This record gives sequence, structure tokens and C-alpha cells, in this order.
Amino acid sequence: MFQMIVLYDKPADAAAFDAHYDTVHTPLAERIPGVRRLTVARPGPADDGTAAAWHLVATLEFDDQAAFEAGMGSPEGQAAVADLPRFAGAGVTVLAAPDVRQIL
Amino acid sequence: MFQMIVLYDKPADAAAFDAHYDTVHTPLAERIPGVRRLTVARPGPADDGTAAAWHLVATLEFDDQAAFEAGMGSPEGQAAVADLPRFAGAGVTVLAAPDVRQIL
Repeated sequence: MFQMIVLYDKPADAAAFDAHYDTVHTPLAERIPGVRRLTVARPGPADDGTAAAWHLVATLEFDDQAAFEAGMGSPEGQAAVADLPRFAGAGVTVLAAPDVRQIL
Repeated sequence: MFQMIVLYDKPADAAAFDAHYDTVHTPLAERIPGVRRLTVARPGPADDGTAAAWHLVATLEFDDQAAFEAGMGSPEGQAAVADLPRFAGAGVTVLAAPDVRQIL
């Protein structure tokens, strides 16, 4: 299994980010061919009250690296990438992991 | 759904980290009560060849925050936490996200 983990930095305007993410970006992301699973997490503060370092973490799963590359290279994948500058100007970190082990 | 996302910094000795993670830490993590899903990702370099910022990302899923707290507070959860200093001295960031949306 292949995971793309997308970490979004804290936006200046969290409400605007969330509205765009939920109504525009998520529908684009779920149309990427080959995405088997897609979760959207908004981390809360740590036990000591410290704010989480990121505003949102999206995890997309594909069967393998070839499916990931085909999906992201498709018109739908490119549309999702092209949407990033419209809401993620604060910064985004993308991790791409082949050979993910699913333990449970 | 509740996600705990654990980001491990690059260890000084990746081979020693991986051996401990796979043979000691993973068996401890999978015994935590209430863990519904557990994936272990080792991010590769970015398209431009830049190394990933983290060595390993583990994602644990629980039904909800109560299940997460009960699981981590159990003897098995505490045993997994107590194992961290034995291999994760380079640093670890834990994100805890309630109300995760599973889109796909």
C-alpha cells in the first residue's frame, strides 16, 4: 500500500481554510483515480495544552506507487494540486510512502 | 473516528531504529486495546530528491477519543509509551485528532 500524507500548516484564517477544504478541495481529492481511502484529521492540542503543529492532516491511500503516480498525473490529480495555492498558502508538506505496512 | 499520528524524526542509526520498531515496538502497539487500524509508513524522498522530514509515520485509529484515552491509559498503552525512549531519542511528534472524517 502507498500513502500520501499531507500536512497543512496553520492558516491565517482557519475558518476560510476549512470552508475551502471541505467544499472545494475534498471533492477534488476524492475524484483522484486510484484513491482507495482518504481521511481528514484536524489535530487537537496536546495533553499539556500546546497547539498541534499542523492544522490538518490528510492521508490518501493507493494500491502502490504506480497507482499513486497515475492518479496524481491524471487531470483529476492535477486539478487537486492546482487547488492548493487557493487555500494552503501558509504551507504544506507532502510525504509519499511506498510499501506501507498495515499491521491492523 | 480518532487518529493518533506519530511522526518519528530521523534517527542517528536508521537500521537500529527499524529493527527495534519492527520487532519490539510494533508488537507493543498492536496490543493496545481499541486500536482498530495501524499503519506504518516510511516516507521516501520528494520528487526533487529532498529527503523526507521524518523517518517513519505511524497512524493508529480508534473509534473515538474515549477509546483512545482508555487504550493509551491501559497497561498495554503505557508499555508502548515506555518503549519510546529506547529507540526514538531523535525525537517524536504525536498528533491526536478527534472527529476524523473518512471521505473514502
